[in-house]
Amino acid sequence: MDISALRTANPEHWTKAAAIRTLTLDAIHAANSGHSGMPMGMADVATVLFEKHLKFDAAAPYWPDRDRFILSAGHGSMLLYSLLYLTGNEDITLEEIRNFRQWGAKTAGHPEYGHASGIETTTGPLGQGISNAVGFAMAEEILRGQYGKKLVDHYTYVIAGDGCLMEGVSHEAIALAGRQQLSKLVVFWDNNGITIDGTVDLSDRTDQVQRFKASGWHVQEIDGHDPAAIDEAITAAKKAGKPSMIACKTHIALGSSAQDTSKGHGALTDETLIADTKAAYGWPYGPFEVPAEIKQAWESIGSRGAADRSEWEARLASVSDRKQGEFKRIFDRDVPKRLSPTIRALKKQISEEGPKVATRKSSEMVLEVINPVMTETVGGSADLTGSNNTKTGDMGIFDTDNRSGRYIHWGIREHGMAAAMNGMALHGGIRPYGGTFMAFTDYARPAMRLAALMKIPTVFVMTHDSIGLGEDGPTHQPVEHLAISRATPNTHVFRPADTIETAEAWELALSTKDTPSVLSLTRQGLPTVRRKHTAKNLTAQGAYVLADAEGKRQAILIATGSEVEIALAARDLLQAEGVGTRVVSMPCMELFEQQDEAYRKRVLPAGPVRVGIEAAIRQGWDRWLLGERGREAKAGFIGMTDFGASAPANVLYEKFGITAEAAAAKVKELLA
Amino acid sequence: MDISALRTANPEHWTKAAAIRTLTLDAIHAANSGHSGMPMGMADVATVLFEKHLKFDAAAPYWPDRDRFILSAGHGSMLLYSLLYLTGNEDITLEEIRNFRQWGAKTAGHPEYGHASGIETTTGPLGQGISNAVGFAMAEEILRGQYGKKLVDHYTYVIAGDGCLMEGVSHEAIALAGRQQLSKLVVFWDNNGITIDGTVDLSDRTDQVQRFKASGWHVQEIDGHDPAAIDEAITAAKKAGKPSMIACKTHIALGSSAQDTSKGHGALTDETLIADTKAAYGWPYGPFEVPAEIKQAWESIGSRGAADRSEWEARLASVSDRKQGEFKRIFDRDVPKRLSPTIRALKKQISEEGPKVATRKSSEMVLEVINPVMTETVGGSADLTGSNNTKTGDMGIFDTDNRSGRYIHWGIREHGMAAAMNGMALHGGIRPYGGTFMAFTDYARPAMRLAALMKIPTVFVMTHDSIGLGEDGPTHQPVEHLAISRATPNTHVFRPADTIETAEAWELALSTKDTPSVLSLTRQGLPTVRRKHTAKNLTAQGAYVLADAEGKRQAILIATGSEVEIALAARDLLQAEGVGTRVVSMPCMELFEQQDEAYRKRVLPAGPVRVGIEAAIRQGWDRWLLGERGREAKAGFIGMTDFGASAPANVLYEKFGITAEAAAAKVKELLA
Repeated sequence: MDISALRTANPEHWTKAAAIRTLTLDAIHAANSGHSGMPMGMADVATVLFEKHLKFDAAAPYWPDRDRFILSAGHGSMLLYSLLYLTGNEDITLEEIRNFRQWGAKTAGHPEYGHASGIETTTGPLGQGISNAVGFAMAEEILRGQYGKKLVDHYTYVIAGDGCLMEGVSHEAIALAGRQQLSKLVVFWDNNGITIDGTVDLSDRTDQVQRFKASGWHVQEIDGHDPAAIDEAITAAKKAGKPSMIACKTHIALGSSAQDTSKGHGALTDETLIADTKAAYGWPYGPFEVPAEIKQAWESIGSRGAADRSEWEARLASVSDRKQGEFKRIFDRDVPKRLSPTIRALKKQISEEGPKVATRKSSEMVLEVINPVMTETVGGSADLTGSNNTKTGDMGIFDTDNRSGRYIHWGIREHGMAAAMNGMALHGGIRPYGGTFMAFTDYARPAMRLAALMKIPTVFVMTHDSIGLGEDGPTHQPVEHLAISRATPNTHVFRPADTIETAEAWELALSTKDTPSVLSLTRQGLPTVRRKHTAKNLTAQGAYVLADAEGKRQAILIATGSEVEIALAARDLLQAEGVGTRVVSMPCMELFEQQDEAYRKRVLPAGPVRVGIEAAIRQGWDRWLLGERGREAKAGFIGMTDFGASAPANVLYEKFGITAEAAAAKVKELLA
Repeated sequence: MDISALRTANPEHWTKAAAIRTLTLDAIHAANSGHSGMPMGMADVATVLFEKHLKFDAAAPYWPDRDRFILSAGHGSMLLYSLLYLTGNEDITLEEIRNFRQWGAKTAGHPEYGHASGIETTTGPLGQGISNAVGFAMAEEILRGQYGKKLVDHYTYVIAGDGCLMEGVSHEAIALAGRQQLSKLVVFWDNNGITIDGTVDLSDRTDQVQRFKASGWHVQEIDGHDPAAIDEAITAAKKAGKPSMIACKTHIALGSSAQDTSKGHGALTDETLIADTKAAYGWPYGPFEVPAEIKQAWESIGSRGAADRSEWEARLASVSDRKQGEFKRIFDRDVPKRLSPTIRALKKQISEEGPKVATRKSSEMVLEVINPVMTETVGGSADLTGSNNTKTGDMGIFDTDNRSGRYIHWGIREHGMAAAMNGMALHGGIRPYGGTFMAFTDYARPAMRLAALMKIPTVFVMTHDSIGLGEDGPTHQPVEHLAISRATPNTHVFRPADTIETAEAWELALSTKDTPSVLSLTRQGLPTVRRKHTAKNLTAQGAYVLADAEGKRQAILIATGSEVEIALAARDLLQAEGVGTRVVSMPCMELFEQQDEAYRKRVLPAGPVRVGIEAAIRQGWDRWLLGERGREAKAGFIGMTDFGASAPANVLYEKFGITAEAAAAKVKELLA
């Protein structure tokens, strides 16, 4: 393609976009890895967006009412880093650009949330960014509903590639955005016709325009290298009154000999290719060199939003102190002062009443008291509202005619729900939680991992957490999912034994600022095992002595959730035979691991035999049964070794041998 | 709704369909759980399909050229069980219907593959069945391409609900089917407008007709209770020349007081409701009673295909003995006799040449020799062909103009690929394998679990299996995915150390009939650590002594994959200091666990300190480090404790401390 026409048609635009393209070439050449083609193809769209539309202030990158820009096609990270550097972001310096993809650099291979301001979310796993964006746009709607346009009124822009649109989660995201008519969401589809394996049509011939229209979107098709067309399309998209997709026909690796090829998707590192491409661009400058006048033009784009920002600050200052404080609090992820007393009061009441309820129901009881005092919570379920017990009386349903509603009917979209919840948490001002069956953490898993990696406090309410769900059978019965959730770094997996522990788990899940939580909750009823009230949150310690041995301590039973009841019954059997038995409830292994060694040893002293009881596989338990270096105890485990089966829950517990009798027998076997 | 018009319009049809509806009501009443509404709503469609179109013979349920019927909306399992019982399936007796959802019954809550003939796949996790079906239809095309219409020429029919169509994986499946113009795939959408939370439009307003059209499907809309319309639509669908979706407007829980409500979705167990519904149906019979004349009518449907089947058998008998034998062999999942000698010859050659290559490349080398001798393999990649190294020279690309092609460009659809591969394996006659990055097992996970649960030998080729992939960073670096795969029951996770072990792993993955395999392969080059040729497949033992201690055995290093090289280097360091060190390569923990205790003790004798080395989290290792009951050894682990980072691979290994020096130091610390 002869790009001279592009150069001459609009030289001012061209040089700004060329700066993105050449920084991309130089950084990838230096790193000897990366993805050149996408930034080279989408530089024009990004330039127009940043120059003419994106509301942001490089000097105040965390301004809550900024427009959000999400690079869903995260492999094209040099597009984002170039934009941040050029507009004057303080984190992404030229040094960082030079260190692209090196140890300690903020310019990781894919954009990593937390590395630098301006990186609104971690992308790379395809389809996540566009799905996060739906959550961003929902958060904006909800907060606008709650706080008004004065304080919240911004757009969310996304660049998505063919990969994002092929991933299944994009279907969930697109359908959700269409259903909710999220009019402040604008998606640019980088329609370059190329994937890693070759042309897109090798694997896909979807009519994306029709597809988005079928989901209720506004759609436009433009030449992605025509600045005027881009500008007009964005202007129209902002006024569309519904989510808008702009199909941008682009040339991947524009202007290089690899243009429009799958080679162009990857790292263009050949020096001749780079030199030839720069020559075609009319770019005579050295590596990483951006002439001062072009840099200044970009920096004035970076400061274009300063006035908007100061006006917004004035508007914030004009509202009541209480409202200002609340707005600041929710964006700081601070909990309201009333949360802890509220939880304590509930715990006290429950310890007195001692109800026998499923922990999914306990969770609802807790939410009924939390949601009124913590109005930044937004709940929902993937079409299992009555089963997950995630809806409380005061929330209202989020819908096109009720934007301040705090409950979302996510539909049968576990993955989209999880990714959009991540987007809400990233947007700020919202504490999202959402439910499905524990077995379907499988569907949500890619987004759950990203919550952990991004250090955001999304809460996953996973009910029906074992064979205890009964007749629905092995497809619905988690056996490995606790291990999977625990395997994920920076994830708190709570498996509460009763309503008290459930309340404590919720307090922790809503108090952390940087860790997602998985609440593993039962379908079946459980007794209240904590009948002695403590103001202290014992779940915060991860594990604690629920019932100590009478007489000589010969055995320790460690259990979680629904199996704590079994451990207590096993203790009764053993004590009746004179075997001194301690029961340790372990609602959160990760928090127990974080306690000091002295506490851990007090709870789990070396010596007595140990038996773990959990209606799941053993993997992940040995650390507590055997000790980190082993040799601490003779140990056994009562749980599952294979998939479950379809039958009533009590039958399954018997058939799979997860009973007090089996636990007591295991202790005696180990003591023999 | 007054259903008397339906009853009188076509009484013969009505009574047959009513038998399905009433068996459903009775079974769910007896079980006190289940999903009544869907079978009641879709009984008419199913009746017409089975009566007029489905090519099957209840007396020969495994006939390879039968049409396949897949209930993607698996919660409506009583629809399938009723059909099987009524048509005379030998597994689903009336006794089984009476024992719906009870321990040991073949009639599990959701259809479980392997419980009974006629259950073509396990469904329940939504979206899986329709995605499996795409694999069934691809398998049919490929086998027809290879064996001709004489032996392979059948349809795949699917019933999918709103949940299936909301799940993201359905997008991947629908786009694939459209791209490949799978003309023998017919999907009935049970368009009942109801989900668990309420009406569908609470969460979704997708125009499904436009959506399917955008993906290249033939679409019809009909009244799902009109037998003539159903029949005509199926006839048209079969001739459409592309995949066909029939939108069937139905009433969930037809004829009951719960009709058209979300209550109707679940278990209708109220006796008055059941009595009233049966009265409305004109069904005066007792629970589980199907009058002989109606049962006979159904049984004649069950035997309708007997003639087709015997003609097919005659056609099979008419082809060459070699072709008959091959056809039988592939459907029996037997490996060709030449497989083992071929693998052995490659192993011998490699042990002599000792190449240093990434195991993803080793895998390609192995496939280059396997694919020509095992023509039932079908390979592919989720748009990472050049990275996963899954394509070999002789395969041909499966496409609309090359139906016998054995390589599939799956596109950026890890989940759809995995589910469709399951469908191919279930169809029979195909050994599917497909690749993506190990970190993206997250996306494929729901289907990978179902492969394990269904006991089918799908092969997942997962490359870039650790921080060793380098610069792409933590989103692409698995740290917990080995633990996740190992946590899944009935899954073989192979992490080979070199080309020899890779060849052995492939032999095992392709020889098993009932276990899926995950091949965990490196991006980075690895030396050949097995330089002494053995005809025996050592990987089949799961773990073996690769290098024994010289002098007194004080330490055992256990490693997998890329870390075996590190273990050997650590052994050199330790032996140089007089510490007798054994190195155990452990390419498959699951197979090691299956060895007898004597062998396991020979490989891992109690006494010496043990250090595990794997560039992943420790979870799952303690069983081997500490022993099942603990106390076997003092132990340590060299691996990851958190997410990775973006940098060159060698830098990451240094920074995260996964080095020979660190392993040697850990041994000395434990010995001190």
